[in-house]
Amino acid sequence: MTVTILDVAKRANVSKATVSRVLNDQGGYSEKTKRHVLKVMEELEYNPNAVARSLTNKRTQTIGIVLPDLISSLTTSFLNEIEAVAHKAGSSVIVCHTESKGTKTMKYLQLLHEKRVDGVILASTILKKEYYDYIKKTKIPMVLLSTDSKYPVSSVTADDYAAAYMATKYLIQQGHKKVGMISGNKEEWIVGNHLPRVEGFKAALLDNKLSVSEKHVVYGGFSCEDGAAGLTQLFKQVPDLTAIFTENDEIGMGVISAAYQLGIKVPEEVSVIGMDNVKFCEYLNPPLTSVSLSHSEMAKKAANLMFEIIESNKAVTNCIVPHRIVERQSVSKK
Amino acid sequence: MTVTILDVAKRANVSKATVSRVLNDQGGYSEKTKRHVLKVMEELEYNPNAVARSLTNKRTQTIGIVLPDLISSLTTSFLNEIEAVAHKAGSSVIVCHTESKGTKTMKYLQLLHEKRVDGVILASTILKKEYYDYIKKTKIPMVLLSTDSKYPVSSVTADDYAAAYMATKYLIQQGHKKVGMISGNKEEWIVGNHLPRVEGFKAALLDNKLSVSEKHVVYGGFSCEDGAAGLTQLFKQVPDLTAIFTENDEIGMGVISAAYQLGIKVPEEVSVIGMDNVKFCEYLNPPLTSVSLSHSEMAKKAANLMFEIIESNKAVTNCIVPHRIVERQSVSKK
Repeated sequence: MTVTILDVAKRANVSKATVSRVLNDQGGYSEKTKRHVLKVMEELEYNPNAVARSLTNKRTQTIGIVLPDLISSLTTSFLNEIEAVAHKAGSSVIVCHTESKGTKTMKYLQLLHEKRVDGVILASTILKKEYYDYIKKTKIPMVLLSTDSKYPVSSVTADDYAAAYMATKYLIQQGHKKVGMISGNKEEWIVGNHLPRVEGFKAALLDNKLSVSEKHVVYGGFSCEDGAAGLTQLFKQVPDLTAIFTENDEIGMGVISAAYQLGIKVPEEVSVIGMDNVKFCEYLNPPLTSVSLSHSEMAKKAANLMFEIIESNKAVTNCIVPHRIVERQSVSKK
Repeated sequence: MTVTILDVAKRANVSKATVSRVLNDQGGYSEKTKRHVLKVMEELEYNPNAVARSLTNKRTQTIGIVLPDLISSLTTSFLNEIEAVAHKAGSSVIVCHTESKGTKTMKYLQLLHEKRVDGVILASTILKKEYYDYIKKTKIPMVLLSTDSKYPVSSVTADDYAAAYMATKYLIQQGHKKVGMISGNKEEWIVGNHLPRVEGFKAALLDNKLSVSEKHVVYGGFSCEDGAAGLTQLFKQVPDLTAIFTENDEIGMGVISAAYQLGIKVPEEVSVIGMDNVKFCEYLNPPLTSVSLSHSEMAKKAANLMFEIIESNKAVTNCIVPHRIVERQSVSKK
């Protein structure tokens, strides 16, 4: 039998309300009563029911994280950091993954509200008006991770435009003049949307007076498979290509793998730079040069910000983490 | 303002208890009352508080998953499948990662009990007596995933011994006579423990009258880094080695990467076979031959079993999923 608060009250010869107040450290009882109640709890091996307690203190000690993809190295490193911060703060993390197209996002926000989570971290997902209206109405504290928005919501993200510009400029500085990009955004998704990484890529080429047009960009998904397919497509569109910027490292891994299968040498025949600097970059053949967006730091910051907001109704804070190039062996001088 | 059950009761002119019974579909009211209460809920945009409701129906519609490592491709694919099954069953998943040494496991079991989760999936973790005693006492439904135990607890796992035996036999069939293994278990952890993969490896060599001793096995961690270090160590111990079985694919990735850096050709100079058949195997240079343990299927089965147990107090069920070799390009004939 599970021991209930009533069992504790009976044995301690106090009211249920007193036991509840002791549990939540609310005062209104003597130190002697407190010690007595705590002793009885120990004797009965009473395990406070967090569900019941959350009705009293209005906190569930649970936060939600909404992610588009659980398989990518990037989002799992987010989860890893967030879970660690939450654990230190005495909270648990409910994981909701919306699959890559985000169709389940709204449904998950409702579910998390129904579970009365203390806050939600929305990662790598565009904050649609529908979502914003909902969190505004329900007043769920929210932090955006690796994405920002035009709405007044706290966020921790990187400067994607500047990072893509830096990656492309790096290739140009190594002497490359024919540079292509493999983007993770399928063309049909992006009507009317802002694409900072593609824009940063194009701007770097234009600023250096190099040719750039739509044929220099291939749009696909974010997986290795998309990178492999993207390489073939990009060479069809720009046959004299010597360097490629890939929107993430999974795409870069696919490019390196497809080049190996096609007998194209990396970096001798084509240089590749990825983005995100995930763990496996170091273990590819050749190891992949990549732009680090400090994702672990980003996730840690977002989680810390989440708990600050929960504690203190902190004002909207938008934080941008720095980026830098991590040189390995996939880019050569031209 | 959040609408409460009391607001609904007032507006519908019924008692709070009636609203609660309607919410939980418990009967004891007329069809007319039910329709009226539901209509009022809709008018007020009442969002049932899952926390409060779980106190009534004794279900929190939440399960916990306890995992040792969130970064590995393997455990994230577990999480992916489990979250999908849970979502279909109307439940959420709280993720608890215990870090590789499992020191937080007991603490997490207590936390999940305090949160009154409907069940716990314990993945890739040895079920210690301490854990078993706790789940027995608290009666939390539990399913073990990718691990089994001597205690009467349901599980879905692979036959690790047979899978390691198959991997090693495959190398022998390709003509290899000097075969080593890089194991993910640090020697200091394994005192008195059963190591089915190492035992399967040794048995295959012995059954084929090939030499095997402790110097044929290097013990380290489960990461790429451990694989890279393991390669150097194994060549020191067995200089004429021609093939390596790695306990997982991350270790295999590290071996392929270190070989590339050292100028050792895979598979021409050393063949490598991994285990788990995670997604990236296909994208390594060369693509890694691996033993598939049907992990996605395993996780899906474990999650389905979890909900069967929650629903019906199903008897202890132990399920073993099949394994098979997926041939790629990292093993050559000798």
